[in-house]
Amino acid sequence: MKSKPLAAALTLVLGAGYAATALAQVKPEILVKQRQAKMVLQAKYFGPLAAMAQGKAPYDAKVVARNAGYLDVLTEMAWDGYDPSTKDVKSRTLPVAYTNADKFKQAQRQLETAVDQLVVAAKGGDEAKVKAAVGAVGKACGSCHDDFWEN
Amino acid sequence: MKSKPLAAALTLVLGAGYAATALAQVKPEILVKQRQAKMVLQAKYFGPLAAMAQGKAPYDAKVVARNAGYLDVLTEMAWDGYDPSTKDVKSRTLPVAYTNADKFKQAQRQLETAVDQLVVAAKGGDEAKVKAAVGAVGKACGSCHDDFWEN
Repeated sequence: MKSKPLAAALTLVLGAGYAATALAQVKPEILVKQRQAKMVLQAKYFGPLAAMAQGKAPYDAKVVARNAGYLDVLTEMAWDGYDPSTKDVKSRTLPVAYTNADKFKQAQRQLETAVDQLVVAAKGGDEAKVKAAVGAVGKACGSCHDDFWEN
Repeated sequence: MKSKPLAAALTLVLGAGYAATALAQVKPEILVKQRQAKMVLQAKYFGPLAAMAQGKAPYDAKVVARNAGYLDVLTEMAWDGYDPSTKDVKSRTLPVAYTNADKFKQAQRQLETAVDQLVVAAKGGDEAKVKAAVGAVGKACGSCHDDFWEN
């Protein structure tokens, strides 16, 4: 391990110019990258739960509890990435996400509520309730993608 | 909002074949994408703290508390993405991450410890201590990247 001043280490880790602009306007391309990253991780931790709910994988209460907790936190993240400044950056987000921000926020709330209920179900430990809650999360994902995402 | 069976909605959200393979072997390319996604989000939520610690942004205790909590959870995620099966997938991870897994795990622990201390400092509310803890997290990021990442 080489010793490096913090500033140099941060530039290495975060990319030149990132730290300096951290609280100022973040570039639209970076915002898009961040919101896509959040989706990738949501898929990583939701996928196994979906497989369990569909009977394609054995039920594992430990994985359910961990992943529900992760999804709870991930679902809070990176919504600020749908900033109007990003509307011309290439992505699968449809223009309506920017033109009808209220409807988009409502869809976000729907997911948050479904994930909250999944967390409650995971704590309760009733497998049938967990599977129903996973289904509700999947529906919230799907309906938001139906409306705001290019297939 | 169109109504869709859960399986179809999940395929839409997760990509064909994802749900089915959720608990089986995940493709190396997907593992790499997921671990990179985790890094993108770590940078998103660490960047503003680094800017504060460096005096480039005003101190904001609320952002510190929120981001420290996010980093705490993110730091747990996606280490399983450094599976030996990914060693030939193009990324900036150096071969030593696979050949010296113990050293790599030690570097992971170092980050986890530093982030735990940041969470404690954020709860304590002492600005100087928070800034020192941010510096320690930055050093843990930097030293791991020095050893296991292609600059």
